[in-house]
Amino acid sequence: MNEFSFIARYLRPLTRGFAGSLNLTDDAALLNIPSGMQLAVTQDALVEGVHFHGGESPSFIARKGLRVNLSDLAAMGAGAHCYFLSLILPESCAKEEWLADFARGLAADQEEFGIALAGGDTTRTPGPLSISITALGLVPAGEALTRAGARAGDAIFVSGPLGEAAMSGYTLLPAPRMALALSLRGLATACMDISDGLAQDLGHLCAASGVGAEVRADAVPRLRADVETALTGGDDYELLFTVPAARISDVPEGCTRIGVVTQKHKIRILDAGGVEIPLARRGYMHF
Amino acid sequence: MNEFSFIARYLRPLTRGFAGSLNLTDDAALLNIPSGMQLAVTQDALVEGVHFHGGESPSFIARKGLRVNLSDLAAMGAGAHCYFLSLILPESCAKEEWLADFARGLAADQEEFGIALAGGDTTRTPGPLSISITALGLVPAGEALTRAGARAGDAIFVSGPLGEAAMSGYTLLPAPRMALALSLRGLATACMDISDGLAQDLGHLCAASGVGAEVRADAVPRLRADVETALTGGDDYELLFTVPAARISDVPEGCTRIGVVTQKHKIRILDAGGVEIPLARRGYMHF
Repeated sequence: MNEFSFIARYLRPLTRGFAGSLNLTDDAALLNIPSGMQLAVTQDALVEGVHFHGGESPSFIARKGLRVNLSDLAAMGAGAHCYFLSLILPESCAKEEWLADFARGLAADQEEFGIALAGGDTTRTPGPLSISITALGLVPAGEALTRAGARAGDAIFVSGPLGEAAMSGYTLLPAPRMALALSLRGLATACMDISDGLAQDLGHLCAASGVGAEVRADAVPRLRADVETALTGGDDYELLFTVPAARISDVPEGCTRIGVVTQKHKIRILDAGGVEIPLARRGYMHF
Repeated sequence: MNEFSFIARYLRPLTRGFAGSLNLTDDAALLNIPSGMQLAVTQDALVEGVHFHGGESPSFIARKGLRVNLSDLAAMGAGAHCYFLSLILPESCAKEEWLADFARGLAADQEEFGIALAGGDTTRTPGPLSISITALGLVPAGEALTRAGARAGDAIFVSGPLGEAAMSGYTLLPAPRMALALSLRGLATACMDISDGLAQDLGHLCAASGVGAEVRADAVPRLRADVETALTGGDDYELLFTVPAARISDVPEGCTRIGVVTQKHKIRILDAGGVEIPLARRGYMHF
C-alpha cells in the first residue's frame, strides 16, 4: 500500500467531513477560529521503546498518542477542536492490518472526544515507530487555565488516583479530563496535567506561579500504588489544579484536596504527622 | 544536559518573546488569531536516513525542517505566524554542541522568515534523529490559495528552476517562496509547492481542481538538471500555480510559464515538437 492509498483509505475518513481539513488534499489545513476564542496548541511525540514498548496494539498506541495531547488541552481548560498526525512508520508497520487497526483506534477516540483529523504527514523510518500529534483546542478568550495563577493559601487538588500508570507498567490508556477541565474555567487559579509525576509537576506549577506548596502524602489518592509511586510515577494524566480557599466547595466531586499553596518557594511533602518526606526522585526525565 | 536545561538554554530564546508561547512553561501555547484571518496549519516530519542522510550539520537539518513547512504555508498564500517542534533525539545528538548548532539554525531562519517558536516536545529515541514541525500561518479569510481552483485555459507557472535538489543529491537548502506567495493572492487560481516532483504534483493539483494539463518540457526552467530530472526530481519547493489567461502579464518576474490547464483529466508532457514524452516515474513516493 502506498502513501496515497493509505491516506485515502484510512486517514481521509478520520476528517469526518471537517471542512478545515480540505479533505487532506492540500498543502495545509485552513481553519476558521471563532471570534472571542483563543486557540490552545499542544504537540507531543511518542516513540517506540521510550513511551511504549511496541507490544501494544496499533490501536492502543494511536489512542495513547491522541489522549496525551487531549490531556494537555484539558490542562488549559480548552475544548478539543482538531488534530494533526505525523506518522513515522517502520517497515513492520507499513502494512494493511497494522494501519487499519491504528486508524480504528483514532476513530474510536475521535468519536469519544469529539475531535477530527485535520492534516499531517506520513513517512517511513529505518528506526522505531514514532508519532507526533499536534492538537488544537478552543477556549473563550481570557478563560484559559495556565500554570501561572496559583496564590498562597489556594487549595491544591488532583482529579483522580495517582501512580496507577506506573503500577500497570505504563500500559494504561490515559483518560484525558476534558469534561472536568471545562468546569474548572473561572474556578481554578492554575492547572496542569500530571505527566511526569506529581512531585515534579507540582514543582513546575509552583515555579510558574512563583509560589511553593505543602502536600499531605496520605491525602494523595491512590488505588494500588504505594505513596512513593503515587508521588513520583508519571503518565497518569490526571489534572493538578489550585482553587481559592473560599471556593473549595465549588470543586466537582471526584477531585481530592491534597495540600495548600505556600508563599515559600519550596515543595514540601509531609507525612500524616506533618514530617517532611524526602523523595529519592521527583519524576520522569525525558532525556 | 537534561530536557529542562536544554529547553531553557536553547529553545526558550527561540520564542523571541512571542506571547502565545507562554514562554514554553505551560501545557500548550495560547494563540490569538486576528479576526478576519484564517489559520493555515501544516505538519511535516523529517527522518534521518529518509529525508537527510545524517552527515549534514545540525543547523542544516533544523533549517530544512522549518523551510519545508514554511513552503507549505507559502503554497496556501499564508504569511508565517509561529511553529511547534517535536525533536526526537538519538543519544548522539543529545549533547551541547549538537543542540547549540541546531538551535542556531532555527534562530537564523526565524529571523529570515519572521516566525517564532511557540511550543513542542523533546524526547529521546533509540532510532534515528526525527523532527516533526507544525507551522501556523495567517491568510485573510477567503484569500487562501488551494489546489482546487484551476480552470481549463489557465496558464501554468513555476517559480524557479526544477531538478536542482535532485542534482545536488538533495543537500540544497530549500528557499520557501513566502514573498511570492503573498503576491499570488487574488491572482493564482490554484497553487501548491513542488515537493514530490513536477509531474506527480501537477497531477495532484489537477485532480483537486478536476482538470488536466499540458506541459511543454522544453519550457520547464532548469539549470543543471536534464529534462527527466526537472520533471520528476522532488524536494525543489518551488511554487506551481495557475493563472487565468487574461492575467498572465500580472505574474511577477522570475516565474516561468510552462503549460496550460486542459479540460481532459490527463497530464500530458510534450516535447518541443508537441509529441508526448512518456515518464518512467512521476516523482517521489514516501512509503
